[in-house]
Amino acid sequence: MILKGDLMKTIRTSIIGFGAVGQGVAEVLLQKEKYLKNIGLDIKVVAIADSKGAALDPDGLDLLKVLSQKRARGKSKDKGTVGSEKLTGLEIIKNIDHELVIETTPTDIETGGVGLVNMRAAFEHGRDVVTSNKGPLALKYRELSGIASENGSRFKFEATVGGAMPIINLIRDVLAGNDIISIEGILNGTCNYILTRMMEEQASYEQMLAESQELNIAETDPTYDVEGIDVACKLVILANSIFGMDANYKDVDVTGITKITPESLMLAQDDGYVVKLIGEVKKDLIRVGPRLVPVGNPLAVGGTLNVASIQTDLAGTVTITGRGAGSIETASAIISDIIAIYR
Amino acid sequence: MILKGDLMKTIRTSIIGFGAVGQGVAEVLLQKEKYLKNIGLDIKVVAIADSKGAALDPDGLDLLKVLSQKRARGKSKDKGTVGSEKLTGLEIIKNIDHELVIETTPTDIETGGVGLVNMRAAFEHGRDVVTSNKGPLALKYRELSGIASENGSRFKFEATVGGAMPIINLIRDVLAGNDIISIEGILNGTCNYILTRMMEEQASYEQMLAESQELNIAETDPTYDVEGIDVACKLVILANSIFGMDANYKDVDVTGITKITPESLMLAQDDGYVVKLIGEVKKDLIRVGPRLVPVGNPLAVGGTLNVASIQTDLAGTVTITGRGAGSIETASAIISDIIAIYR
Repeated sequence: MILKGDLMKTIRTSIIGFGAVGQGVAEVLLQKEKYLKNIGLDIKVVAIADSKGAALDPDGLDLLKVLSQKRARGKSKDKGTVGSEKLTGLEIIKNIDHELVIETTPTDIETGGVGLVNMRAAFEHGRDVVTSNKGPLALKYRELSGIASENGSRFKFEATVGGAMPIINLIRDVLAGNDIISIEGILNGTCNYILTRMMEEQASYEQMLAESQELNIAETDPTYDVEGIDVACKLVILANSIFGMDANYKDVDVTGITKITPESLMLAQDDGYVVKLIGEVKKDLIRVGPRLVPVGNPLAVGGTLNVASIQTDLAGTVTITGRGAGSIETASAIISDIIAIYR
Repeated sequence: MILKGDLMKTIRTSIIGFGAVGQGVAEVLLQKEKYLKNIGLDIKVVAIADSKGAALDPDGLDLLKVLSQKRARGKSKDKGTVGSEKLTGLEIIKNIDHELVIETTPTDIETGGVGLVNMRAAFEHGRDVVTSNKGPLALKYRELSGIASENGSRFKFEATVGGAMPIINLIRDVLAGNDIISIEGILNGTCNYILTRMMEEQASYEQMLAESQELNIAETDPTYDVEGIDVACKLVILANSIFGMDANYKDVDVTGITKITPESLMLAQDDGYVVKLIGEVKKDLIRVGPRLVPVGNPLAVGGTLNVASIQTDLAGTVTITGRGAGSIETASAIISDIIAIYR
């Protein structure tokens, strides 16, 4: 059944930032086109921008063509661009008629980067924003949600915390009615992988960092992950959006995993514990650091998984586990946010 | 901020069945009255029925008074009743003007019991139903959702599967856009407790059943739990509501935990596994039985916890853990369903 006419909502959309996540969104929109039309949503991508150029079509871009163009050119000496139009993401947001901006530019944690500028402009033009970009939210959540609200724009950002581990919508929608007392969990898959492998192999931090870099789990410069900064940003987003705080990632008490030894992991294991990099947020406290977790506790998950335990007044503790990264997984969170806005 | 006039929705409500869960709902409605009014919902309970009588007030019952009356009388020789009106739940559903029936009568898995009759009548009178009663859904889901749909009634039942582990709304709302490939998990807290304790104490099934009965975790007649029937009912509800099947709990391939020995648990432990009673549903398969789960797997949770892993096409595997029982926990699921309907 495809809905016609009045029952179908057309949502003109831009994708700003066309790296792994932006491309994942395009793939998922293609894959789920029929499903989305069945629930009454015609998501028409009218513009896509990367850092070099843009593709435009007011009638809706052919996403398959755009994806293959981006990837084909990527293999040549000219680094790939999505299209030949010389428009920036910001110009698209300001000048092209559309309802929804999917903001997937890279996180800049120092200044908020182009993402911050893009989101401000989107709200000032009355557009809704769905994003995976942590930087602007970790720095300026209150300002952004304020501008969104003044302009009647919707602002959703499930993908910024834990990729396909859907913690924000779980709390806001599914646990509605509950007071949230605290959230704690493993919010960085790279750190979880390194700690899990150090324990399995009785190996050093340096050895297992090297392994995870070979497997493309850790980045060449792993500082942002292993020093706990990535977790701090996610905690700040939870603190601001769930607890109504006005925190900045610099307010977080942060310890990373670089000083952990295999000997300490073995001692913990002998007593029935594992060591995990745990982020924690509750009223007046935001911190991240290594902690002992009992084996059999829902937080004691291994590999690259993310997990969060949400302590509530009525439902007790609810724990959610999922993949914290991956372009399709992150795109899944973006699609769910889009459906939640327009369904 | 309390919303006034047009912005406030008044929802006249009955609570049919006033045991632990029904009373939990009344307590939570009292506790969350201000929160609910803040989001625009005035939930006015106009009738409550238990198996002996009823309390009525078209202007809204005083829930504190009704609760203390039910409990005070419960201590006397006359077994407690909620009120002196000689109306049954069914008569209330048929004859009293209201929008929402909260159906919390006990599960009857053989016939569907009064719950089935009550739900049919509620939908025929155009009322919405939120329920914790598994029986009618495990037997007649398709019929009930059909009548609900014909009459424009809403039908929500998060509390029937896993208490405060919010699996149904997680899948339908938060993971919207994903195809669900399979669901597997621990859906009975009593069995999980017995198996966890057998392993911890190297004790027999009979010993740990006795312990769990002393702690009021297992019932005096534990058949329904330990033979896997309770899990089978929950799987059928998932099969019908998530996978669109038309299954009955008698279609489920069921093995319980009564034949498990502590020796087998120890052997599993030596190899890094725990034994759990796992329920599983996917296209054309519904089954429950003991299975080996690796330590560190998100399903390897202990105590009375419930857990479910949802395999999806986009988000990968998402796992949710929570308390499977408890009157306030179950009431939490009911309140979240109410908010989802009317917000």
